[in-house]
Amino acid sequence: MASHDIAVAEPDGRRRRGDQSRRAILATAVQLASAEGLEALSLARLAEHRGSSKSGVAALFGSKLALQLATIETARELFIDAVVQPALAAPKGLPRLWALCTLWLDYSQGRVFDGGCFFRAVGAEVDSRDGELRDAVAEIDAQWQAFVRRAVEEASPQLPALDDAELLAFRLVSYLTAANAASLLQRTDRPYALAREAARTALLAAGADPAALA
Amino acid sequence: MASHDIAVAEPDGRRRRGDQSRRAILATAVQLASAEGLEALSLARLAEHRGSSKSGVAALFGSKLALQLATIETARELFIDAVVQPALAAPKGLPRLWALCTLWLDYSQGRVFDGGCFFRAVGAEVDSRDGELRDAVAEIDAQWQAFVRRAVEEASPQLPALDDAELLAFRLVSYLTAANAASLLQRTDRPYALAREAARTALLAAGADPAALA
Repeated sequence: MASHDIAVAEPDGRRRRGDQSRRAILATAVQLASAEGLEALSLARLAEHRGSSKSGVAALFGSKLALQLATIETARELFIDAVVQPALAAPKGLPRLWALCTLWLDYSQGRVFDGGCFFRAVGAEVDSRDGELRDAVAEIDAQWQAFVRRAVEEASPQLPALDDAELLAFRLVSYLTAANAASLLQRTDRPYALAREAARTALLAAGADPAALA
Repeated sequence: MASHDIAVAEPDGRRRRGDQSRRAILATAVQLASAEGLEALSLARLAEHRGSSKSGVAALFGSKLALQLATIETARELFIDAVVQPALAAPKGLPRLWALCTLWLDYSQGRVFDGGCFFRAVGAEVDSRDGELRDAVAEIDAQWQAFVRRAVEEASPQLPALDDAELLAFRLVSYLTAANAASLLQRTDRPYALAREAARTALLAAGADPAALA
């Protein structure tokens, strides 16, 4: 029956438009939060940014906390697309470990997020608190640290002088983190060159073939 | 004349009480800002914390921006007391460079500020903005980086295998920065042990005498 078909089609159409609106709002929200923090994400502010009503944004997300959590999840997906997936596309071992370092530096320097690494920006905001926002950011950070650690362990056959995988993973993550922070605060790209050189030096000291670190 | 003496004494007494109130408010403000950010510093909130009136706090600082800038300056003084002065008390060269690393880790781990390193906490907050707050934090960060760089250069006679002072300074600051961030977010002291070991490893690779890195 035609009327039934339309009745079914209309809710689907509304859902589709709702998903598009949600995605558009979250695309704005990740940029805003990376530069100004998760606290800056109010339903009213996002509505204003999108030229829509606060009630419309509220209907899509329910609450400020839900909007903040959805923003963190969106940032996680963007990070996976920019760093994790391309690193996994590189051969397991030293090529993947080196890809991961350079992809992360490109991700930060290329400002996938206006405020540099999303998780460094909001990490400093939530790390002294308790609650769901802090837990969500800490969980993603822990996954990232574990990912780097695993990549170091997988590269160990090509790192004959490696004596401490945990320490090397800590050092590599340190260079990336510090380059992001220094570049944002000092407004210079120099820290990215230093981080790249520091990571290269650390891998060479662990016995990496220089040809693998192009 | 007695009345004149009293007239002189009273303003002095008021000024003294004003200085004490200012210091007490700033002692609260640095802790609050390190955990919640400079934006959390409102005249009303500080007044509430101190059990005084908003107009009283306003009379002492004038504006929120002036309060924020005075808070940054107070944090700088606390940082100098905790890290810079004790490092300068160590003999110039490798002892001072090593002291500086361990003092910084103690400063962060000991939570001189509730939110870990004050400048890392507020750095992430202001780094995407323009204005006096950002300039003040960036200037202190630049002074710190220059201080570490100078310490590396002064230690170079005791680091015979050192080939790049800028890179070593970057690496050392990276370990400290990353330990602070990871410890706060993951709520573990393990990153401090890793940072200490990473700094030690970097100095040994540059030819440091192990006995100097106790």
